[in-house]
Amino acid sequence: MRVGVLTGGGDCPGLNAVIRALVRKGVQEYGHEFVGFRDGWRGPLEGHTKQLDIPAVRGILPRGGTILGSSRTNPLKVEDGVRKVKENLAKHEVDALVAIGGEDTLGVAATLADQYGVPCVGVPKTIDNDLSATDYTFGFDTAVNIATEAIDRLHTTAESHMRVLVIEVMGRHAGWIALHAGLAGGANVILIPEHRFDIDEVCGWVESRFKVRYAPIIVVAEGAMPKDGELVTKDGTLDSFGHVRLSGIGDWLAKEIEKRTGKEARTTVLGHIQRGGTPSAFDRWLATRFGLHAIDAVSDGDFGKMVALRGTHIVRVPLSEATAKLKTVDPALYAEAGVFFG
Amino acid sequence: MRVGVLTGGGDCPGLNAVIRALVRKGVQEYGHEFVGFRDGWRGPLEGHTKQLDIPAVRGILPRGGTILGSSRTNPLKVEDGVRKVKENLAKHEVDALVAIGGEDTLGVAATLADQYGVPCVGVPKTIDNDLSATDYTFGFDTAVNIATEAIDRLHTTAESHMRVLVIEVMGRHAGWIALHAGLAGGANVILIPEHRFDIDEVCGWVESRFKVRYAPIIVVAEGAMPKDGELVTKDGTLDSFGHVRLSGIGDWLAKEIEKRTGKEARTTVLGHIQRGGTPSAFDRWLATRFGLHAIDAVSDGDFGKMVALRGTHIVRVPLSEATAKLKTVDPALYAEAGVFFG
Amino acid sequence: MRVGVLTGGGDCPGLNAVIRALVRKGVQEYGHEFVGFRDGWRGPLEGHTKQLDIPAVRGILPRGGTILGSSRTNPLKVEDGVRKVKENLAKHEVDALVAIGGEDTLGVAATLADQYGVPCVGVPKTIDNDLSATDYTFGFDTAVNIATEAIDRLHTTAESHMRVLVIEVMGRHAGWIALHAGLAGGANVILIPEHRFDIDEVCGWVESRFKVRYAPIIVVAEGAMPKDGELVTKDGTLDSFGHVRLSGIGDWLAKEIEKRTGKEARTTVLGHIQRGGTPSAFDRWLATRFGLHAIDAVSDGDFGKMVALRGTHIVRVPLSEATAKLKTVDPALYAEAGVFFG
Amino acid sequence: MRVGVLTGGGDCPGLNAVIRALVRKGVQEYGHEFVGFRDGWRGPLEGHTKQLDIPAVRGILPRGGTILGSSRTNPLKVEDGVRKVKENLAKHEVDALVAIGGEDTLGVAATLADQYGVPCVGVPKTIDNDLSATDYTFGFDTAVNIATEAIDRLHTTAESHMRVLVIEVMGRHAGWIALHAGLAGGANVILIPEHRFDIDEVCGWVESRFKVRYAPIIVVAEGAMPKDGELVTKDGTLDSFGHVRLSGIGDWLAKEIEKRTGKEARTTVLGHIQRGGTPSAFDRWLATRFGLHAIDAVSDGDFGKMVALRGTHIVRVPLSEATAKLKTVDPALYAEAGVFFG
Repeated sequence: MRVGVLTGGGDCPGLNAVIRALVRKGVQEYGHEFVGFRDGWRGPLEGHTKQLDIPAVRGILPRGGTILGSSRTNPLKVEDGVRKVKENLAKHEVDALVAIGGEDTLGVAATLADQYGVPCVGVPKTIDNDLSATDYTFGFDTAVNIATEAIDRLHTTAESHMRVLVIEVMGRHAGWIALHAGLAGGANVILIPEHRFDIDEVCGWVESRFKVRYAPIIVVAEGAMPKDGELVTKDGTLDSFGHVRLSGIGDWLAKEIEKRTGKEARTTVLGHIQRGGTPSAFDRWLATRFGLHAIDAVSDGDFGKMVALRGTHIVRVPLSEATAKLKTVDPALYAEAGVFFG
Repeated sequence: MRVGVLTGGGDCPGLNAVIRALVRKGVQEYGHEFVGFRDGWRGPLEGHTKQLDIPAVRGILPRGGTILGSSRTNPLKVEDGVRKVKENLAKHEVDALVAIGGEDTLGVAATLADQYGVPCVGVPKTIDNDLSATDYTFGFDTAVNIATEAIDRLHTTAESHMRVLVIEVMGRHAGWIALHAGLAGGANVILIPEHRFDIDEVCGWVESRFKVRYAPIIVVAEGAMPKDGELVTKDGTLDSFGHVRLSGIGDWLAKEIEKRTGKEARTTVLGHIQRGGTPSAFDRWLATRFGLHAIDAVSDGDFGKMVALRGTHIVRVPLSEATAKLKTVDPALYAEAGVFFG
Repeated sequence: MRVGVLTGGGDCPGLNAVIRALVRKGVQEYGHEFVGFRDGWRGPLEGHTKQLDIPAVRGILPRGGTILGSSRTNPLKVEDGVRKVKENLAKHEVDALVAIGGEDTLGVAATLADQYGVPCVGVPKTIDNDLSATDYTFGFDTAVNIATEAIDRLHTTAESHMRVLVIEVMGRHAGWIALHAGLAGGANVILIPEHRFDIDEVCGWVESRFKVRYAPIIVVAEGAMPKDGELVTKDGTLDSFGHVRLSGIGDWLAKEIEKRTGKEARTTVLGHIQRGGTPSAFDRWLATRFGLHAIDAVSDGDFGKMVALRGTHIVRVPLSEATAKLKTVDPALYAEAGVFFG
Repeated sequence: MRVGVLTGGGDCPGLNAVIRALVRKGVQEYGHEFVGFRDGWRGPLEGHTKQLDIPAVRGILPRGGTILGSSRTNPLKVEDGVRKVKENLAKHEVDALVAIGGEDTLGVAATLADQYGVPCVGVPKTIDNDLSATDYTFGFDTAVNIATEAIDRLHTTAESHMRVLVIEVMGRHAGWIALHAGLAGGANVILIPEHRFDIDEVCGWVESRFKVRYAPIIVVAEGAMPKDGELVTKDGTLDSFGHVRLSGIGDWLAKEIEKRTGKEARTTVLGHIQRGGTPSAFDRWLATRFGLHAIDAVSDGDFGKMVALRGTHIVRVPLSEATAKLKTVDPALYAEAGVFFG
């Protein structure tokens, strides 16, 4: 078999580990050949490929990013996109395609597999951990470790200066990184998109923290919003308090807390460093196992499926099911963390 | 309620996170009081306690080790041990006891709960991850991260000197750390106690690795053994090849490989640094959730149980069941890794 | 002797290491007693103290921040400030005062020592490394390590998305962190306050980098400024190009580069995480040696002096000299880095 | 000019950073061409080369080891070695040779330059930091960071089990790593080759540490020796106490302390992980600057010299002088650390 591989969406630690596992097992155990497609779905759309064999995957396991490049190109939104993709797959004699990506990339794979008969297998990837049907996605553990280490560092500054420190982490629609890193880092307040927060309650926690002579750390997901607040964007939408939002929720929070409590507050926006660099051991392990099981699915001709983690097992689930619904933080799970607030 | 807490067995990153979560939720949500017992089961046996309240658990989340101390004392093997434990619990007016530990510590808890009516709840702890009934134990992820980072470091030396590097990791009876760190670190050979290895096969992998101009990294669990080999101990038992074993399996392997392949080989024994220091984010999260759910079980009066991880959920299982059987690496899972050997 | 100790200005990894070394050597070798003053010069000004003995300094070596707290209070700017300081020192029977801090804190110490006869010894501290008379200050190496690790992480995202990544690091008046971390991280452009940059030249480097199919990383000190640019502040001053500056130089750069080159650009502002957390080995070593030598100076009655690093030696220099002039990056040193630009 | 480059001796984090800086500046500023010689002096001796140009050095800055390979081959000890080296240099039209290495590698360079007119420039490299004429060598800071992190991890295990933990670090003839990491890690005893230790005194420190209810950490350089002890080797030489030395000084110490104090003691031998992996920011900075200045020396035709660090400046010193004498730990510097013993 000739197997195409592509990586789509935002980069994520572990992508290279998946690619390596696919190729190592595909070549050695099944005798497959591989074609790397460049820059996500743009590769099969425009016919850009890259040599993908055992020498090409040596040494990439610990490296972040993706040797295949990535993009957010969606062939379903391009005129004649599906036809072009099918032509390029045919031209490169590709018998099966492994798509590694998040909701968007896998959504395309699901449509191509289910409606157009393209033999796709999916590998789930999202730093945000918001993909249904899998317990975890790789990249998430690395991001949580980085955010936790940052929180550890902020504690000493908070204590030394008796200052509120706000740290804004990734999570536009789901608060997984904020929740895990907040718990692991010993944050005093954790704010997530799934639960609109009450700024008065937040200020109450801040003040109760100072009363025991400790300084509060607040972890906020970028998509978190105040109660009654309008949608907050980086571009400057008006919020419900009539402020022009010049920046993210983290900066807004710090200003609001300063105004309401009179305490100094500062914000750190972790940004891109959460998703780059070498993957954690867990992410390398998960990504490697995803790769090994995805190439098994390919070799079984079991298309339209995605590999997924359930407990300690790797299983296969329909792509369509996997991308149907965003996995958000359960209110009960969020409530569990509440004992540490304030 | 007055709740006793003890930590037994080898220390492990995350113990303090459990203690903190127990106390925070116990005091704030349930109004419990706490008594810390010192040094594992020696504490209730000899009546050594330590103050355990909210100030006592501030700042301990990121710290390795245990503020309560630990020991391997087994009150079931001490004359009148059970009576003494019960007397000391009564003396300190303890209504429930949370025992945090591995097979031995929890085995005592199971016996005390089931046969002597001591109201115990268990929290599983083992760096080796070899406890049944839970997907993972805290401490394991930290150990795997440390071992993986060490393997990352060894790669560059191996390549620069074209030398075989052997790294011996923890795992007397189960190869979980070796398997996970070996996969995550890109090892060329992984040897575990569950699968007796063939030294000729190992040397074959070493030689095939050199043929592609790369130097091999071998990860070996301390309990791994050669086929036909006698039990290997650090004290110098004769092995099946007639050598006096002066040291561990790692050193033996390096010497054997040098002798058989003519290549230079060196061993690193990771030892204690695998289980000390600050816990990884995953271990802090898991340990914290174990603590929160264990105090729920206590408050429910649900004794004789242990908290456990299943997928992303924390469940309760009977202590007796949990400690009945060692969780070893499944042959199929080990076979999965074989594609990377050589 | 009774020795007072205070830490002033922004917190910095290594402060606790200095305090520990002072107390360990002071008590054990010289038989001194210690008085900790809280929150920088506010401590002696308002008479707030904290117990400072050997038990108080146990375990603090690896901890960031300062157990004494800090502030930017300047007693010279407070009515009757000098008199109050002297009274409180007398009240606590303090024979000598060790002030650990940056330009401002040590400037106060210099004035008190030289003009008011207060027996002060200084220990230099600045993350920015911009203090004259010493080769390095502690905290700097930690900050450079953190920034370098962040740059390492950004490389993989930059490559995967062929995107310009800007990272803004500390350095209001001196570009030491930007220069060291930029060189260590393999940045393609480094911008420092000492050298006004030409935005056209920066865009030229960006484009030449993309030509070899690599994505550029730009490290910019927070105090860097464009040629002909007006002073840039976080509060929204107009810059010379007529833009309202909503945020820092990093955001400005990313927007300007996007506009001029048509390439996507993103900014990460490292902020407070550069100065918190556990100190690097070098900073612990330097801070410890500063503490040991400062208490020697105290015991020698050699007041009005500051300890300083020269090569591998710790020397004493007059406080007045040390705080006279900011240490900025030499143009020749900056030019050395230019070979890596573009 | 055509410039040859080789790396000799044990691998060391920063070698690739030197190579990259040489090539980047050599090609871009001076228009030089480069020839990489493989495996230290074996390369010029046997004529093994490797392409060395700007694409070859992309991405190698953060990587440990050396892309040129290394060996301990000494052409002065090979029949006709010097003639062969000169012939191979001539054959590859090499106008100058940059040798990066420790005492041995640079000693060869010194002889070739001074006695045989080979145009050599040296770059000092040793993890042990025992090379005269330079304040620091790259690799050392990385090793000290790794050892310090290991000590940090051991503290929690020592405390939890009230056990003596011995950590053996590199340093056959000089105790720099032990001294720096011991101070930075808060060790309770530091033993170095420059100062024969008294085992009774060591046991005294161990016992005084336990008296304050803390567990001792002992850092010992591999070359440290007891007073009156015979030379200790890994091969099993008899020591002065009549014990067969089965292993290194760390194991010996742990056994001796157990025997004499009755306290449990364990040893960790850090080994190869001290010298592999990504270099610290300081080492990348130093190695990069060494590379930049070495290619300046080459371009100036200033042969027979080595680059060296003095304070914050890079200077040139005669190769012969630099390799004349081992740089060991000054007794006064070691005495400084003594305040923390026990």
